[in-house]
Amino acid sequence: MDITIIGAGNVASHLIRAFLNVSEVNVVQVFARNPKALYGIIDSEKVISNWKDLKKTSIYIIAVSDKSIAAVGAQIPFEDALVVHTSGTMSFSVFPNSFKRGVFYPLQTFSSTKDIDFSNIPICIETEKESDYLVLERLAKLLSEKVYSISESQRKALHLAAVFVCNFTNHLYAIGNEICTSNQIPFDLLLPLIQETADKVKYIAPKKAQTGPAIRHDDNVINHHLSQLNDEAYQHIYQLITQSIQSHE
Amino acid sequence: MDITIIGAGNVASHLIRAFLNVSEVNVVQVFARNPKALYGIIDSEKVISNWKDLKKTSIYIIAVSDKSIAAVGAQIPFEDALVVHTSGTMSFSVFPNSFKRGVFYPLQTFSSTKDIDFSNIPICIETEKESDYLVLERLAKLLSEKVYSISESQRKALHLAAVFVCNFTNHLYAIGNEICTSNQIPFDLLLPLIQETADKVKYIAPKKAQTGPAIRHDDNVINHHLSQLNDEAYQHIYQLITQSIQSHE
Repeated sequence: MDITIIGAGNVASHLIRAFLNVSEVNVVQVFARNPKALYGIIDSEKVISNWKDLKKTSIYIIAVSDKSIAAVGAQIPFEDALVVHTSGTMSFSVFPNSFKRGVFYPLQTFSSTKDIDFSNIPICIETEKESDYLVLERLAKLLSEKVYSISESQRKALHLAAVFVCNFTNHLYAIGNEICTSNQIPFDLLLPLIQETADKVKYIAPKKAQTGPAIRHDDNVINHHLSQLNDEAYQHIYQLITQSIQSHE
Repeated sequence: MDITIIGAGNVASHLIRAFLNVSEVNVVQVFARNPKALYGIIDSEKVISNWKDLKKTSIYIIAVSDKSIAAVGAQIPFEDALVVHTSGTMSFSVFPNSFKRGVFYPLQTFSSTKDIDFSNIPICIETEKESDYLVLERLAKLLSEKVYSISESQRKALHLAAVFVCNFTNHLYAIGNEICTSNQIPFDLLLPLIQETADKVKYIAPKKAQTGPAIRHDDNVINHHLSQLNDEAYQHIYQLITQSIQSHE
C-alpha cells in the first residue's frame, strides 16, 4: 500500500515510525512545513515541504492540528484520493466531497520523547463509503490488533472520555507531584500507587474500585485534607471530585 | 520475628498474606472481630476474636479503620510492646505512651479481589524511638525493596497526594467509563490510554507530560466538550481542571 503522511508533530512522527516498520506499507512521501522535525525519522529525500512535489498515492493521512486539517486537505490535487485525518474531534466533511473521505484516529497520547508500541493502540476508523472502510481497516490492522468501526459521534465521545482519563488524570498526577515536592518526598513513592490504580480498572469497573475518604464519607480526613491544601484551585478540585464521588455512588 | 496482626480488612488481609510468604516472620496470631473474613487466608486456629486470648509477641500491627485504632491499641496488655498502625493520617500518639510506638504505612490501594506484589510497595516507617526504627525497617525490608523513613507530616502529605493520584483519578476513570457506556463504546478502548498515561510519568514529570485541549487553550474543543456533558457535576469538574491546568502552566 502506497501512502503519504502529512504532518510532523507527535502523531505524525509516531505514525511514520510505525509504518516504516511494516513491509506491506510504502511511505512514499511525508509533507512537513518544517522538514527538520523529521530528521532521523525518515530519509530526508522522502520529506517534501512544497505541495507541487506531492506524488499520487492510494492514501493520504493528514496528522496535523485540528484547525489546519481543512486547509491541508484542500492542497491535495488528486480528486479521487482516499484522504483521512487523525483527529478525535473533526468530521471528515471538512474535506471536499470529491475525495474518498475518512478518519483514522489512533486513541493514544503521544510524546516526542517516548516510544510507543502501536500493536496495542485502538485505531478508530470511519469512512464515508463502505468500500473505503475495508482499505483503511487493512491498513490499520498492519499496525494494531485493535481496529474499531467508530462513528463520528462515538469518536467525539471517546475524545471527551480521553480528556478525563488522560489529560485530567495527568493533572492530578501533577498535583500529587507538587504536594510531594513541597514536603521533600520523592514523587517516585507515588508511582506504584499510580500504576496499581491504572491496572485495577482492567479487572474491576472503576465505580466498584472506588476507595478513599470520599466514598467512605470520612469527614474528618476530608476536612483535614482541605486544610492541608494551600492552593485554592486544588481545594476546589478536591471538594468537587469528593462531592461527585458521593453523588454518583 | 514474632508478630501479631490486628484487623481483617483489605490492608490486614494483604499484609497477612504477604507475611505468611516470609520465612523469617512468624505470624503468631491475627485478631479479627469477624474471623470469617480471614477464612482461607490463615489457619483458623491462629485467628482470635477475644482479647483474653492475645499472646505476647515482639510487634503488633494494627490494620483497622482510623477511628478504631486508639480503642484497639488500648486492648493490648503488654506494656512495652512495639505497637504500630498502618494509617496514612493518624499519629502514633493515639497509643498509650507506655508502648514503643510507631507507624507502618504501606502506600498502596488494596482490593479484596486483586492480588498484589508487596515487593514494589513503598513502606513508610515512623517510630518514636530510633532503636524501634531499626526493628520495623528490618521487618519492612522482608516485604518490600522500598522502605522509607517518613515523618508524620510527610505521611499526611503523602496520603493527601494519594487521594489525588488514586481515588480522584479512579473517579475520572469512572466518568470515562460512563461516557463510553452511554455511547455504546466498550470501556476497553480507553485502557491502553489509561496505561500509557500512568506509564509516562515514570519518565517525564507530569507537568511536562501535560497534553490536551486545556494546555493548548483550544476553546473550540473545550466548549464542544462542555456541550457534550449532561451531568452538571462532570461539567464543573471539566471546567475546574481545565482552569487549573491553564493557571499552573
